[in-house]
Amino acid sequence: MRIRQMVAPDLNRGFLEALSALSEVNLTFEEAVPVFQRRLNSGLHTYVAEQDGTIVGTASVFIEQKFLHSGGLVGHIEDVAVDPQRHGQGIGRELVQYLIQHCRNLGCYKILLQCTQELMPFYEREGFRKWVNNMRMDLVATTVSVSSSESA
Amino acid sequence: MRIRQMVAPDLNRGFLEALSALSEVNLTFEEAVPVFQRRLNSGLHTYVAEQDGTIVGTASVFIEQKFLHSGGLVGHIEDVAVDPQRHGQGIGRELVQYLIQHCRNLGCYKILLQCTQELMPFYEREGFRKWVNNMRMDLVATTVSVSSSESA
Repeated sequence: MRIRQMVAPDLNRGFLEALSALSEVNLTFEEAVPVFQRRLNSGLHTYVAEQDGTIVGTASVFIEQKFLHSGGLVGHIEDVAVDPQRHGQGIGRELVQYLIQHCRNLGCYKILLQCTQELMPFYEREGFRKWVNNMRMDLVATTVSVSSSESA
Repeated sequence: MRIRQMVAPDLNRGFLEALSALSEVNLTFEEAVPVFQRRLNSGLHTYVAEQDGTIVGTASVFIEQKFLHSGGLVGHIEDVAVDPQRHGQGIGRELVQYLIQHCRNLGCYKILLQCTQELMPFYEREGFRKWVNNMRMDLVATTVSVSSSESA
């Protein structure tokens, strides 16, 4: 297995299927390409785990430069997903460790992520600890965001 | 009082002082300008509350386009700060409501933020609820991140 930065053709190599372990994706290849491009442009980087030419897992990270802490960098890990048929093979662990090393190399002073209660022991084993509270507000999505250019 | 998108000259109008209510900033104006520019380039937008020509508060938001939910948009609110001498005037509330409206206008399906236990009642009044767990890992920052170009 190999972890590497995602490229657009991965969208056709099982990426969307692996990601759908998390929640519904509901994008065709043609719709996903501009999403991929906008994510790259905004510094949201996606990594994939590849096994025999198939994408079996993925994780993303956004690097936020703060004004605080002398312009310090924070890594935000998002959307860690592994093909359910390959759970228990350590793929999630390798993806997370890859992103931790990436954040370390960039000089981040901390990494944040949000996870359910069930996943806490997994992230604690990787070196994370519970820290303050995560708050959420649901909005009614008013536009078809796939075609939005505002996020780029 | 007026809420508006931040511009670089705000760095000299009390912005860094207002922000330092959260944590140490430790940036000169000259160091803060490229940080401001890199944040803008990466889609991390900062808003300010201005009173009589002085910046008295600030809040930032990063819009993340996901592959999940048909390419849905998520607003991440970061670094809400108000000059301690102006606490209790509703400035924080107006900043947060401004960002919520901004996320609504873009078509975000949810907004996330992290806060301490003390601030939970404030955010609950604004319409947020506690949701899953926030996890953190501290790293030793190995580079002077102000001069990093990797975050842009």
